[in-house]
Amino acid sequence: MTYDPAAHDRDKQDRDWQDGDRLARAALTWIAEPGDVQLGPLLQQHSPAAVIAALTAGAPLPAAPAIPGLDRARQRWAARLGDAPTEATVDAWRRDGIRLVCPGDPDWPSQLEVLGGAQPCALWVRGEVDLRFACLRSVSVVGTRAATAYGVHVTVELAAALAERGWTVLSGGAFGVDSQAHRGALAAEGVTVAVLPSGLDDPYPRSHHELFAAIAGHGALVSEQPPGRTPTRPGFLVRNRLIAALSRGTVIVEAALRSGALNTARHARDQNRPLMAVPGPVTSIASAGCHLAIRDWGAVCVTGVQDVLACLSLGAGDLVPPPRGPVLPRDELDPVSLSVLEAVPARGGRGPARIAVSAGVDFDTTLRCLGQLAAAGFVQRCERGWRACLPG
Amino acid sequence: MTYDPAAHDRDKQDRDWQDGDRLARAALTWIAEPGDVQLGPLLQQHSPAAVIAALTAGAPLPAAPAIPGLDRARQRWAARLGDAPTEATVDAWRRDGIRLVCPGDPDWPSQLEVLGGAQPCALWVRGEVDLRFACLRSVSVVGTRAATAYGVHVTVELAAALAERGWTVLSGGAFGVDSQAHRGALAAEGVTVAVLPSGLDDPYPRSHHELFAAIAGHGALVSEQPPGRTPTRPGFLVRNRLIAALSRGTVIVEAALRSGALNTARHARDQNRPLMAVPGPVTSIASAGCHLAIRDWGAVCVTGVQDVLACLSLGAGDLVPPPRGPVLPRDELDPVSLSVLEAVPARGGRGPARIAVSAGVDFDTTLRCLGQLAAAGFVQRCERGWRACLPG
Repeated sequence: MTYDPAAHDRDKQDRDWQDGDRLARAALTWIAEPGDVQLGPLLQQHSPAAVIAALTAGAPLPAAPAIPGLDRARQRWAARLGDAPTEATVDAWRRDGIRLVCPGDPDWPSQLEVLGGAQPCALWVRGEVDLRFACLRSVSVVGTRAATAYGVHVTVELAAALAERGWTVLSGGAFGVDSQAHRGALAAEGVTVAVLPSGLDDPYPRSHHELFAAIAGHGALVSEQPPGRTPTRPGFLVRNRLIAALSRGTVIVEAALRSGALNTARHARDQNRPLMAVPGPVTSIASAGCHLAIRDWGAVCVTGVQDVLACLSLGAGDLVPPPRGPVLPRDELDPVSLSVLEAVPARGGRGPARIAVSAGVDFDTTLRCLGQLAAAGFVQRCERGWRACLPG
Repeated sequence: MTYDPAAHDRDKQDRDWQDGDRLARAALTWIAEPGDVQLGPLLQQHSPAAVIAALTAGAPLPAAPAIPGLDRARQRWAARLGDAPTEATVDAWRRDGIRLVCPGDPDWPSQLEVLGGAQPCALWVRGEVDLRFACLRSVSVVGTRAATAYGVHVTVELAAALAERGWTVLSGGAFGVDSQAHRGALAAEGVTVAVLPSGLDDPYPRSHHELFAAIAGHGALVSEQPPGRTPTRPGFLVRNRLIAALSRGTVIVEAALRSGALNTARHARDQNRPLMAVPGPVTSIASAGCHLAIRDWGAVCVTGVQDVLACLSLGAGDLVPPPRGPVLPRDELDPVSLSVLEAVPARGGRGPARIAVSAGVDFDTTLRCLGQLAAAGFVQRCERGWRACLPG
């Protein structure tokens, strides 16, 4: 289940390069901004390759029903077409560890369908995990850049507790609450995913260089922006819809009024995903957005991991049912994951070091596989380490 | 509108002593515990005097529909009848400043009807204000005895802000949040009411002796228990239903799980009165009950006086409509209140000292009258002091 280019998409990619849709999607991430309001509807009527071909040829793109603003959008897109990534560019990025994940790929997170026409045409991903599996059991933990000591404490504790229970922690990689959410998950040897507003060749903010390397090593960096793009102000807000849409639910830990975290919270609410907020002192402006969300937006008041999991198990019906066993057949596991799974006992529990020895897999890989097996419902944490989930 | 025995109830009381119902109610507060489950239904079928007469004569008390447990209750009541207060006792208490307020009296808080059969048969009151008017625009502010510095700060600020806006602050007189609520209201020269679990001759807790004197001077002490009674453990919980029922809404500031404040909150919820809770750090056990009330009981998350008033104006329909003018005719005001009211300008505003001079009333009495006139909707605070409310 670790990301394996050979198994997953070499064949598919070769095929797609031929029919052009895959490269076309790469080009579309370049010529259109994330969340482009004309591109989404257009891709419901034309294939990506057809759109690129028409733009290249200067040919019309008939749309029925009509798409308001399409002509100006075509001019905008066409102006950027000259610099769009070629097959060679995309291959070079790929050799640098940045891969393209497209709708229909095995690791495409299908829960993004909640975005409808605002769905990304593709995602750029760097990291070790299968994005779909990592996000199947994930919680977004977001908040203010200006986190207080209280916010940092609560964020780290919550993220670590989620990670310990096999949940992926998703956030935006920013200063403050976001970065502490990633760090908390990493400290608990869990899986974490950062959805970034910049191209992945130069992830933003730069001072989180080492953090981003750690996230890529135990999870994934994700962006709608192709390599080479720097973040834009509207880009942050558009990125936030992905943070909400990729996860099973969103928790805001500290958020000022009119903050990016509240923007993410609003996306979660608008997507009918469970929205949660951690209360704090009413004397702290860093908690004012959380209290607003609780009072006016119906955010559930959560005080710890138990509250979060209770909220998700009630409200998760819109995404996937709470796992009561594996969410994919065992025989679809890659051989390494299968070895790890077979070393996990059905009763009692076993620590990761013993599992690694028993599976004949190195420790880091074992931890990664355990996190992913947990996300897919095969194994669960217990008092004494890990144990297998009973089928059904 | 200040409590005036001559105007209010001398005549009525003399009449009632004759027909015996008033003295009978005094006796009933002695022989039955507050919230007695047999007495409430019985008083819907028999007058208080008839109940006392039957108990004295050892005569039967036929009840249809039947009242389960009535026979044992009669024995329980009869055993205490010998020590019940006589007319002379009640008169002596009255000379000490402790008066009896009965259903039907002008200052009986009719909103207690929400309690149905659990309504008190009478209330013992010490203090300067008319209980009904003081409670017409009141908010209960309650919480843990073990208040943190945060809880104390929030309580004092909230109570003072409510008092400044002409709202009576109601609480239970206990250590911690309760006493700070009273102090905050007093500091803002507002009206405050303490509902106590003990007889008013020896209000509990004793170390709040000076606080209780100040409350009686600017508001009222209230108890279901006659003088001479010490608080009992169940008595605290039964008292809490009154705190919720007397006010327009209840705010819990800090409350541990399984606390008395949560018990009051539950009463407010069960009475369909607006229930509010102030959030706090999730790391503080003193706020755990507030978060529980928000998450599971539908308490509104409030961060300050504006939130509280917004909640009350939405949810107050079950008690009295938000005042858009006086709630009683101007010609029912006592002469002193009328003098003060006539010294309050309709536009601009005037400070209490100038109002006192203009009305020819001493400063303390002026303040008290202004609080009560505000509670009754005649005047309101403004930037420059007080101004009259426009009729209608």
